[in-house]
Amino acid sequence: MSFETYFPVWDKLNTCQKNRILDGLTARQVKKGTILHNGSMDCTGLLLVRSGQLRAFILSDEGREITIYRLFDRDLCLFSASCMVRSIQFEVTVEAEKDTELWLIPTEIYQSIMKESAPVANYTNELMASRFSDVMWLLEQIMWKSLDKRVAAFLLEESSINETSELKITHEAIANHLGSHREVITRMLHYFQNEKMVRLSRGTVTILNKEKLEALQDT
Amino acid sequence: MSFETYFPVWDKLNTCQKNRILDGLTARQVKKGTILHNGSMDCTGLLLVRSGQLRAFILSDEGREITIYRLFDRDLCLFSASCMVRSIQFEVTVEAEKDTELWLIPTEIYQSIMKESAPVANYTNELMASRFSDVMWLLEQIMWKSLDKRVAAFLLEESSINETSELKITHEAIANHLGSHREVITRMLHYFQNEKMVRLSRGTVTILNKEKLEALQDT
Repeated sequence: MSFETYFPVWDKLNTCQKNRILDGLTARQVKKGTILHNGSMDCTGLLLVRSGQLRAFILSDEGREITIYRLFDRDLCLFSASCMVRSIQFEVTVEAEKDTELWLIPTEIYQSIMKESAPVANYTNELMASRFSDVMWLLEQIMWKSLDKRVAAFLLEESSINETSELKITHEAIANHLGSHREVITRMLHYFQNEKMVRLSRGTVTILNKEKLEALQDT
Repeated sequence: MSFETYFPVWDKLNTCQKNRILDGLTARQVKKGTILHNGSMDCTGLLLVRSGQLRAFILSDEGREITIYRLFDRDLCLFSASCMVRSIQFEVTVEAEKDTELWLIPTEIYQSIMKESAPVANYTNELMASRFSDVMWLLEQIMWKSLDKRVAAFLLEESSINETSELKITHEAIANHLGSHREVITRMLHYFQNEKMVRLSRGTVTILNKEKLEALQDT
């Protein structure tokens, strides 16, 4: 499978545009935990995920984190090239959550094509709207949902992504996804354990009763 | 001042596109409090504010509100035409916060021009990025800032928009802007009053010590 089959609007580009992208492109393999972009760094470029998993999050001054969205195979990361759109006035950090293979498209090449091509500009619009929708969903969760429901939803999502009920994740990492504190998450997980929804051991949360977690999430 | 001087990328349109917009356009005057768009309604069209003030907010199932951004003279409201961009998967309500004059551009006309015109598509992108930045700012406020700072910031913003230190606003309305409860806001405002930052009377919050509110907001 080559780049052409991964890039979303490839067949809308003319030959010249295709060549500009292919000439500028670099393939990269990064290890889990690699920071690919952070808000204060220069404009890294667009990242197209071939395989693996990326996480975009924001950071408070005190170093607290909250995950705003995740990217999987075939997803294109726009905010690592945020200088491309003048009105993007916020900073996200992007890290590899698993070992990841990706392509890096230089910002100036994508930007120059977007300026001249309505299909590429409209595609970029859809991409931004899709990330915007993720953040609006998150905002609604934070505003209207209590933390027990958010933790339940997070465990179920992790289990679905990794196709296992035995999650290798620390309480600290869960807190960082949800913008909470480790102590608060630990207390919540112990409550879940007392209710026989999960079993806790060092570095592992095992889901014992998926139905009960789902019921909690949906209330 | 005519529509042409208000529409942001007018000089990037060709004659045919200009005529399509002018033919489809309607001017409207709405009273303060009018709901111009709500999430479940059909795609209203793009709203271009001539004068006045609009507020976009989200609603919880229980009827709680939180303001996500405001629109002033010359601003274009995209989310009242959200059907235009398939990936917009969230619902906002738009109401007139003051008596407002505006133009309504039918969705299908703007959309058809956006599909063929790279400048209009790129402008739409900037617009979306700008609203996205507003929501990211809000998310950071909610996540990392305590409510006293958010109330202080809100009072200062209201005072700046209306160019007065005597704000005609109820505790309920402040709660709806900030996604909080009236009782919580009332308690906070009484604390501000004890600290001599504001004076409360029926339907009015008067700012007495702007510097102290600013200092609180910035800590």
